[in-house]
This record gives sequence, structure tokens and C-alpha cells, in this order.
Amino acid sequence: MSEVKAYAAKSATSDLVPLEITRRDITAEDVEIEILYCGVCHSDIHTVRNDWKNAKYPSVPGHEIIGRVTGTGDQVTEFKEGDLVGVGCMVDSCQRCSACKENLEQYCENGATFTYNSKDKHLGGHTFGGYSETVVVDKKFVLNIPENLDIKAVAPLLCAGITTWSPLQLWKIKKGDKVGIIGLGGLGHMGVKFANAMGAHVVMITTSPSKKEDAKKLGAHEVLISKDKEQMKEHANSFDFLLNTVPVGHDANPYISLLKRDATMVLVGAIEPLEPIHGGALIGGRKRVAGSVIGGIKETQEMLDFCGKHNIVSDVEMIDIQNINEAYERVVSSDVKYRFVIDMKSLKNSN
Amino acid sequence: MSEVKAYAAKSATSDLVPLEITRRDITAEDVEIEILYCGVCHSDIHTVRNDWKNAKYPSVPGHEIIGRVTGTGDQVTEFKEGDLVGVGCMVDSCQRCSACKENLEQYCENGATFTYNSKDKHLGGHTFGGYSETVVVDKKFVLNIPENLDIKAVAPLLCAGITTWSPLQLWKIKKGDKVGIIGLGGLGHMGVKFANAMGAHVVMITTSPSKKEDAKKLGAHEVLISKDKEQMKEHANSFDFLLNTVPVGHDANPYISLLKRDATMVLVGAIEPLEPIHGGALIGGRKRVAGSVIGGIKETQEMLDFCGKHNIVSDVEMIDIQNINEAYERVVSSDVKYRFVIDMKSLKNSN
Repeated sequence: MSEVKAYAAKSATSDLVPLEITRRDITAEDVEIEILYCGVCHSDIHTVRNDWKNAKYPSVPGHEIIGRVTGTGDQVTEFKEGDLVGVGCMVDSCQRCSACKENLEQYCENGATFTYNSKDKHLGGHTFGGYSETVVVDKKFVLNIPENLDIKAVAPLLCAGITTWSPLQLWKIKKGDKVGIIGLGGLGHMGVKFANAMGAHVVMITTSPSKKEDAKKLGAHEVLISKDKEQMKEHANSFDFLLNTVPVGHDANPYISLLKRDATMVLVGAIEPLEPIHGGALIGGRKRVAGSVIGGIKETQEMLDFCGKHNIVSDVEMIDIQNINEAYERVVSSDVKYRFVIDMKSLKNSN
Repeated sequence: MSEVKAYAAKSATSDLVPLEITRRDITAEDVEIEILYCGVCHSDIHTVRNDWKNAKYPSVPGHEIIGRVTGTGDQVTEFKEGDLVGVGCMVDSCQRCSACKENLEQYCENGATFTYNSKDKHLGGHTFGGYSETVVVDKKFVLNIPENLDIKAVAPLLCAGITTWSPLQLWKIKKGDKVGIIGLGGLGHMGVKFANAMGAHVVMITTSPSKKEDAKKLGAHEVLISKDKEQMKEHANSFDFLLNTVPVGHDANPYISLLKRDATMVLVGAIEPLEPIHGGALIGGRKRVAGSVIGGIKETQEMLDFCGKHNIVSDVEMIDIQNINEAYERVVSSDVKYRFVIDMKSLKNSN
């Protein structure tokens, strides 16, 4: 075991502060990674602030991890020292249930081990995320990162990227489909990029007219202001698919009215009660509302390979770990385009 | 044009009373039908009482019509005098839009003409339903009724039957699937019969322990009492499909918890706002909620043929038209097993 530097919240109300944490020794199937970059996900904030009432302290968040391999176990042939790798939201799962067998570890029936705030099978206690110098992870949960990409901007692909990629793939978005991406934040901006790369006619659906120009730069072909009832009416019953990235409970009925018959809106953000959905709105057009959470390891690798091929990364703003608390405030007030990424070199300067 | 006897509500607060209405002359593509039986659907009551705020008066409801052909237009070769036929919820549609071209007239983009309370393209005014002596209908909306069935019990297949058949078919219910039918009324009892005939393991999901025995007689293999939290927990994440026939707004979250990953609950009854659905419940298991309304003419005929082959009809209680107002009260208080059907011979005795 080794003690490594990290940043942690000690309680729901504390700022993140420097703290030493323990990483396990490398077992036969493990990969040890020196962390270079770590993205800042809204879930990090929900967790350290105990918004979901399940936080364990000290809490070391971070599940958009990019780094270099510094060591491997005896049974690891897939990775070698110096490889550029990533770790996303999960570090383990049962590998036996039907979900795991279908490469959908995120739905593991025995509960996936998440990168932070999950039970740690090796050391006891709970898992610590990527706001730290190193991480030791089972090889099955380590991803290859294409070397041609701007690697600091790859970090957010490991959560924001796969969360939007997975439903676009599962619902088979193809050339010519009219796809709406609802909400332009960390998730939404990746949704626009992916849907565009898949050949869809992409409509950014936002409450903020100010986001119009940005949305077009990201790849949206049209921007629909959801507060404008006339515009919403013009687009009624016209969408093949909607990806709803709104991160809080909201009134989904106006969006449902945009769906074609038999079309689906997938929620990826709102882990909260929605306002009442009108049954008639679904029944009258055989419309569907579904949910989706991150993605399995196999499809995460497929996404990364796709990004390497199409040169897709996130739009990021780099910060030092010492500025993490300020960054959290800016995330909460949606003041980031579109993802903060921590340059983990800065951690070396912390006490 | 001819004047025929009917029963109608003259306002939202009036009882149904005898009234003469006008039926059009047979045009080239029309079929004239003497009505023998007409089912009593909850929608009839919603309409005459103006619950949906769109009622037109006088209101002659009834869209579960069984009768004999008494006349046909020049261009009708599909039907001849004496044929046993049915008319369901629709009597016309645009026949040009993508929905009509896919045999899904119920989603006609230009608005299907419903059997009652729709704009009447021939006579002006609005359409009058099956609580009447005769009806004249475009041949494309007339169905063949298998002569081997108990025809008075066939009437409810034309709405309650197709409403439950269509989603079970679309979601490809097959042998061995665990299918839950939520709510045991006019729709639910048909859902149980169909799901059983398709080879599913059928679970009746009801709030009423008193319905247990009946549900098993209808073909349910198990009965799950939705108020019993322990039972609900035992069945969590285990259903391949849920058909939700609850006719009013309700809390759908306990039912969503019953779905397997990737499984769908289809609403066919609640044309009202649902209580807030928790986004996390959908996201956590990639679960889906959808809606479905009646069915197209082609699939209605397929259902009737299936019923002929498998000897499936509704469980009905026969009434005379003179007892319709009392029957409505009993429908509203769920005091019917499971559908009232009017013996339209009784209309001859009305003034």
C-alpha cells in the first residue's frame, strides 16, 4: 500500500482540501496509473455535498481520469508502462450477472463498484476517485486513449462523453435523423458533437438565446429556444430522437410534444422527480420516455476509438487543483464552457 | 338520408334519452350496417359528460359495434348483405399521411374521424356512434367478425380488445415473457386473456385482493397486490413488459420498479397527468415508459382473426338500452365484469 496526495471533502459542508489517501498494492490483474488530468463532473459536486444522501467521507471525487501506466500485475498483458489510459465512472463489477455478460457493467445486478464513494473490495472503506496522484484499477476497467487527441480534453469523454454516446448508439441515430439535444452543458455539448458526427440533423434545444452561436460552433444545425412557444409549435411532432441532458427535475411535456410518433426521449441527467407527465401526450403518439446511465466498458472504448478517428474531444477549461472549490461554484452556476479539467501536476505543489 | 332511432345525451348533465338522428345515404364505398350489439366503453361516459372538454351535443356514443350488413355501395366487393361485421373507434382517416400508409389510422396526421364526436365529412355536424339502429361506414373501416364466436361478447374487442392487443403485439410479447397487466377492468381483463394466449407468464397487478380469483380464471398465472410492499419487492426488476390499464392519473413509480433493465411499461388508459415520475428510476435501469392508443384497422382485423382461432371474447353483462344510465353509474364505480354490452334489439321498444 502507498500513501498518495489527494484532494478531499471531509464533510458535506467543507471545502475540498489536501489529504493523503491509501492506494492498494498492484494485484495480478491490476494497472497502476499516474493521473495526469481529471475532469470535474457535476456528480462530483453532488457527492461531496451529499446531495444524494449517500456520501462517505473523506470524499475524493473524480471519474474522468487520464494518465500513464506506471505498473502492471502479473496477469496484465493488455497494458504496459507508459501507455496512455483512462478510467471512467466504474472500477469493478461482478462480471457474472446478465448485465455484466452483456458488457453493461453500469447496470450490474450486484452493483458496480464506482470510481468513488463505492465500497472498496480491496482495502475496505470506500473508493477514492481521480483528484489524486495515482489510482490502481482492475485491467478490465482501464481504457486505451488514442494518442492523437488533445489528451487533457479527452478526460470528460469518460463520463460526459459516454453518457451521451451510449443512448445515441443504442437508439441507432443515423444520417438524416432529426435529433434534439436538450440543454447545453457538459453533457449537452458532447451530445451535439456526437450527433453531428453520426450524420444527424442536430437541433440544440435550450432556454438561453445567448447559447445560439456556441451551439452552432459545436455542430448544431439549428437552435430551438424552448421558451418560445411559436418555435416549439413549428417543431411539434418532428423529432426522431431527443437526448435530454437537463440535470434537474423539470417539465418534460413540451419536449414530448416535439417527438414524432414512436420516437423516444432519453433522460440522462435528471436523477430527480420530473414534473407530472401527461399520459395523453405519450398515448396520443405512441411516444416513449426512457433513461440511460453512462455506458459499459466495451462501448466506452468504442466511443474513444470513434473520437480518435473523428478527432472529437470536449471543450475544456483547465484549472489547478487549488482552484477546485471556486470551480465548483462556477459549475453550479453553469459558468463553464463546457467542462473543467484539473491539471493534476498542480497536486505536486499541495501540502 | 334516413332518420333512425338512437340514444343521446343532450348536454353534459343530461341522462341519455331516445332521439332520432340522421344517417347518410350509402355512397359508392359505403357499407350500411344494422347494429345488433354495442359495447359500453368508459370513453362513452367521459364524452357524454364532457370530461375531456370537447363534447358535441347531442352526443350519441358507442364504438364497439357489431351488426349485419344491410346494404353496400357500387364499389364494395368486400362485403355483402347479411355479413357479420364490426366497427370500432374510427370510421375514416386521410389515407394519405405516413401513419395511414403504415396502417396506423389511429395516429392519422390529419386527424382520424372517430366513430362519435368527430367532424362528419358527409353530413356536416359531428359523427354519431353505435347507440343507434344503423350506421353507414366507409368499407375500409368495416371489420369481418368470425362467425364462430359468441358475437355479443365480441363487441368489446373493437376497443378494449384492440387497445390491449396492439401494444402486446408491437412489443413482441412471446412465450415465456413475464408480463404484468396493471388494473383489472374492461381493458385489463382483455390484456390478461391476450397475454396468456401469446404464451406469456401473466401477472395480474391490482390493488384489490378480492380480484385474485377472477384474475386467475381469466388466465393470470399470478396475482400481485400492488399495495403490498413486500410482494412488490419480491417482483422488483423482474418484468419483461407491463401493460398499464389504469384509466386515471396515478403514481407509476412502484410499477417502474418492477421492470427489468430495458423493459417497457405501456400506458393505455391514463389520458391524464401522472404523478411525478422519478428520473432516476428510468435512468438507473434504462427503463422505458410509452403510450399506445387503440390500433389500426389492419391489426384490428388480425386481432379478430386471432380471437376467432383461439375462441377469445370479452366477459360481458348484457343490458337493454333503457338501462344505459344505470349502467354508466356502475361503470364509474367499477361494478361490472367486465364490459356492458347493449342488446340493440331493445332500441326498437323506445319511443
